Amino acid sequence: MLHPANIFKNLPESFPEGEQFDELLFRGGVTIERIISDGHKTPEGQWLCSGKNEWVVVLEGEGILEFAQNSPVRLARGDYCFIPAGCKHRVADTSQSEKTIWLAIHF
Amino acid sequence: MLHPANIFKNLPESFPEGEQFDELLFRGGVTIERIISDGHKTPEGQWLCSGKNEWVVVLEGEGILEFAQNSPVRLARGDYCFIPAGCKHRVADTSQSEKTIWLAIHF
Repeated sequence: MLHPANIFKNLPESFPEGEQFDELLFRGGVTIERIISDGHKTPEGQWLCSGKNEWVVVLEGEGILEFAQNSPVRLARGDYCFIPAGCKHRVADTSQSEKTIWLAIHF
Repeated sequence: MLHPANIFKNLPESFPEGEQFDELLFRGGVTIERIISDGHKTPEGQWLCSGKNEWVVVLEGEGILEFAQNSPVRLARGDYCFIPAGCKHRVADTSQSEKTIWLAIHF
């Protein structure tokens, strides 16, 4: 576990099943996940809602998160945001011109 | 909590008390922390040892982690590493030429 890996490397060339989710660590009820989007968005009219808290930061690219009960937020490189458990949200858009790399902590 | 902030902004100009620790989120036993180093290192002969697991990624700059029972690892931009609870480690070095931004998850 002490051998490092790089979050910006080994990016997918194609996305046959939509955005790509890579679990970097799962331990003690905490999941650390890399998400790569390539213009992907949550299907229209569909909401994401998790029983876990989520903290997310955009490391490259950009995206827009929409919330059922809050104003949407645009997340550019370095922007982070906390999404409490039970908060209905969706990815309204991600960059078309570059891949968007998200780091998400679920707990 | 939904209003985003940026992890690359509001960096300190000076470091009167050594490296700077900014708590980005503390909830449900999980702490998400930004650490800014400016050539800082753990004092010679001193070890860090936490009762919590730690996952860390370097977002800018670079550093070297030394372990009591493992080989040292050099972490450049994007490199991440898991440090289990109880693992004796120290920051052997950080970049002198730029600030190093670490994102650390303690849980």
